[in-house]
Amino acid sequence: MPLTETSWSETEKHAADSAFKIAYSRETESLLQQIRQQANSINEVNDLWVLHDYLSARRHDLDGKYDHRYDSLIFVFAQLLKEGWLRLDDLQGLSPEKITKILALAKM
Amino acid sequence: MPLTETSWSETEKHAADSAFKIAYSRETESLLQQIRQQANSINEVNDLWVLHDYLSARRHDLDGKYDHRYDSLIFVFAQLLKEGWLRLDDLQGLSPEKITKILALAKM
Repeated sequence: MPLTETSWSETEKHAADSAFKIAYSRETESLLQQIRQQANSINEVNDLWVLHDYLSARRHDLDGKYDHRYDSLIFVFAQLLKEGWLRLDDLQGLSPEKITKILALAKM
Repeated sequence: MPLTETSWSETEKHAADSAFKIAYSRETESLLQQIRQQANSINEVNDLWVLHDYLSARRHDLDGKYDHRYDSLIFVFAQLLKEGWLRLDDLQGLSPEKITKILALAKM
């Protein structure tokens, strides 16, 4: 399948690593802020379990989403672009072919 | 086995329910304070996962410990006494025989 057989030059790998880190940093910083706010409004034990359930879900989500294997990165970047954790200019350094694939997937 | 065959009068059930709630309230209030403090010192995503792991462990612990079945309460109260979440005077209303059993188990 062409999408998973995409080859990555060293320059592209470097650009991809950078974009990956930027998105992860943005999303986790947003999560940190959310959790700090949620923690400030904890009044009873049930609020703790709501926080725990939320953290479980977000951790599971992040673990699954941030798949750094190069075979997966086109899909990962498309999702991150769609969700707003990446912007198009964060992907500078990738080939036009990859950018086109990422943009097409992000629109799905 | 004598410990699990202990019968509970209505008065004792009422006293046991009250002691159970008191201990649960004390322990969960202490947990709430801990989590608020821990949440205030969250600086990076790894701190979040430490918090999540801690909440998972404490929730599992509480779910297992606060077993309200009357067959289990002698053991439950012994553990809570040992851990300091119950005091002897919280158990007022239970028969001297039950108190003796609880105290003996709490010393183990």
